[in-house]
Order: sequence, then C-alpha cells, then structure tokens
Amino acid sequence: MDKKKNNISMAVIKRLPKYHRYLQELLENDIDRISSKELSEKIGFTASQIRQDLNCFGDFGQQGYGYNVKDLSNEIRSILGLTKDYNTIIIGAGNIGQAIANYTRFDRLGFSLIGIFDANPKLTGLSIRDVEIKDIDTLPEFLHKNKVDIGIICVPKNSAQKVCDALIQNGVKAIWNFAPTDLEIPEDVVVENVHLSESLLTLSYLLKDRNEE
Amino acid sequence: MDKKKNNISMAVIKRLPKYHRYLQELLENDIDRISSKELSEKIGFTASQIRQDLNCFGDFGQQGYGYNVKDLSNEIRSILGLTKDYNTIIIGAGNIGQAIANYTRFDRLGFSLIGIFDANPKLTGLSIRDVEIKDIDTLPEFLHKNKVDIGIICVPKNSAQKVCDALIQNGVKAIWNFAPTDLEIPEDVVVENVHLSESLLTLSYLLKDRNEE
Repeated sequence: MDKKKNNISMAVIKRLPKYHRYLQELLENDIDRISSKELSEKIGFTASQIRQDLNCFGDFGQQGYGYNVKDLSNEIRSILGLTKDYNTIIIGAGNIGQAIANYTRFDRLGFSLIGIFDANPKLTGLSIRDVEIKDIDTLPEFLHKNKVDIGIICVPKNSAQKVCDALIQNGVKAIWNFAPTDLEIPEDVVVENVHLSESLLTLSYLLKDRNEE
Repeated sequence: MDKKKNNISMAVIKRLPKYHRYLQELLENDIDRISSKELSEKIGFTASQIRQDLNCFGDFGQQGYGYNVKDLSNEIRSILGLTKDYNTIIIGAGNIGQAIANYTRFDRLGFSLIGIFDANPKLTGLSIRDVEIKDIDTLPEFLHKNKVDIGIICVPKNSAQKVCDALIQNGVKAIWNFAPTDLEIPEDVVVENVHLSESLLTLSYLLKDRNEE
C-alpha cells in the first residue's frame, strides 16, 4: 500500500486526521460501509477529492459498493502511524501544558504521557493525572532512562529553543510546539506547531474581511 | 491599499499572522528597516515569496531600501483587523477553556475576554483573571446586553453545535472552535478551528514517515 506514498502532498496529509476522525465516528455509530458521495456530504470535501486523496495510498473502495469503513479506518490509522503507541512528555506545566496533560483524548489515540517538567519549584512535586511534575534540570537524565517519542513544548517563547535543543540532544525525534516561536531543528527531527495567536489573527482577518463585503 | 485584496488566497492569509509576529519582534528589537532577503532568512519563506505575498496588499518596500518595519507592521495589523479591539467570550471552562482564559497574550493583541460560561455548577461563580464563570443558561441574556465579537467554543464535541447555534442566533459573527468537531455555520459567520488531535496525528504521520525513510 505504500507504493505511491512518496508523492503525497502536505495538503493531503493535513486532511488525513480529519478522515480518521470521521471514520471513527462512523464506527462508533456501527456504520459498516459508505460511498464517497455520502462521506463527502459528512466531511465536506468533494467526492472526487476524497477518491483522489485515498488513491494516494492505494486502491480503496469498490465501484458500486463504496468504502468498507473498518478497512479504510484501519488503513488510515496505519498511514497515520497509529498502530503503535507513543510516549510523550510535556515541558512547561503552565496553562496550556496543564490543559494538554489533562486531555484524555490523546491517551485513547495511543499517546501516553509519561513525564511533565517545569522550572517553577512551586509546581514540581505536584501531579497531573498521576504524572508528577519534575524539575526541568532532571530532563536529560529522564530522557536517558526512558524512551520518549514526542516532546510537547509548552514553555514561554524565550526558553523554547533551549528546551527543544535539550530534547533533540537526548534523542527525541518529534516536537509538538505550542510556544509562539519557530524552532530551529535538524533535518532528521519533525515538528508540528500550534500557534494559537496566529489562529486567532486568521479569525480576526476573516471577520474584518466579512464586515467589508 | 485594499484594491487587490479580493484575490488573496487562503495560503497567503494563513502566512500573514506569521509576518505580524516577526515584525513585532523586529520592532521590539528596535530594527527600523529590513530587506526582503533578511526577512526571508528570519521567517523562512523565500524573498520572492515575501515580495509576492506583500504585493497582494499594495506597494510595500522600496528598491534598495527594503521594508520600513513600522509601516509594514502597521499595514499588516490593519489587514489583519488589529486596529480595533474585539470582545470575546469563552464557552466551556474546562482544561482548554481555562488555558485560553489565562492567556494574557491575546489581550495584548486587542482581544478582551468579557465573559466565561459553563454548565457545571461547581465552576460557576469562580473567576479567571477577574472574569466570573457564569451559568451557560444566562448566555443569551448576556449576548443581548453585551457586544460580543468572537465566541470561543471549548465545550465537548457533543454540545459544540448547540453552543454554536446559541451564539449565532444571538448575533455572534465569529467562532473560534476548539471542540473536536466541525460546526455547521451560516455563510455570514466565520469560523477558525483548532483541532489539537488532528495536529498531533499530523505529527505522528511525519514521525512514522521519517522512520520509514
């Protein structure tokens, strides 16, 4: 199924988690199969877009039958790397770090939180969902002793690069960055940014644009 | 300056908040002017991309001089709708709602939080940064009495559409949605989604893809 995967555009990749979410909902509602037309009505992409997207990964769906929801869901889970579990740690136990730590949804997707780190002595020693907040100085030691797949950076802008460097120097290959800055990372590390302010400014642009029409 | 704005693609719009962030940093560091080449090195877009993007909005920059940082920043603030202030309310004072309520960065951009609502009687009456958490049943009354520009939805998936409908019926025209679902909205309302799970799945895809190389 991986034969075509080298040409997948970022636009397609960005749509895959949405397919995953809708297929999970279909499964929860005991729906076994769905046509690209029906899926299109639910998900809001055109039927042709859906066929094109899913074709990137192989030959899904049968003419006149549609997609087998379970098979398609399994395949997308596999493409998204969800057939294995991931160990994650959060660095920065402020507002956003705590919110992420409390988000049980990620566990259900296979992302286990195994550590939380903060520089503030008022926070170290406390626990969120049974995970103790540790002193950030113990981070390298923790990374030597534990396999950590994803580092979730929730520290302020000015310390984000330093934290990122510490993670990478100690073998972490994926960074989920909530700090409002762009990180410098080597080529063999992947990063996904959640820049909340930028999302809010997109909304204010759209609102202004709407009011000018 | 708005003469060319009708043809602006969503891709350009999505880059504008990033320009805004970098230009603010330049201003904070007392940098008055910058060439598109220097800006390119900082921001990571090509110089040609930058010239093309900024040309969408008018005639910035001078040959041999570069961009006047303050003028460009003001223009981008204006394009993004940041020359006015916005009243926001948060619906859902759980993990993510509390994190957003505590985020002072949005205030500084001109987004004032004037109300927080939740259905949980254990939360109502408490305050976050001097904003009291009110019973969600009082939301319509609040919307009649106060001008609310942006509704920030932080409730669980299953109640998100109901909350969204209540906001829209009472005149809110912009929705910032953190619930892991897609909302149905009329054409005259704008929405911006922050789907955290989808961002995390993009990261797991990239990590898997990296490991397979």
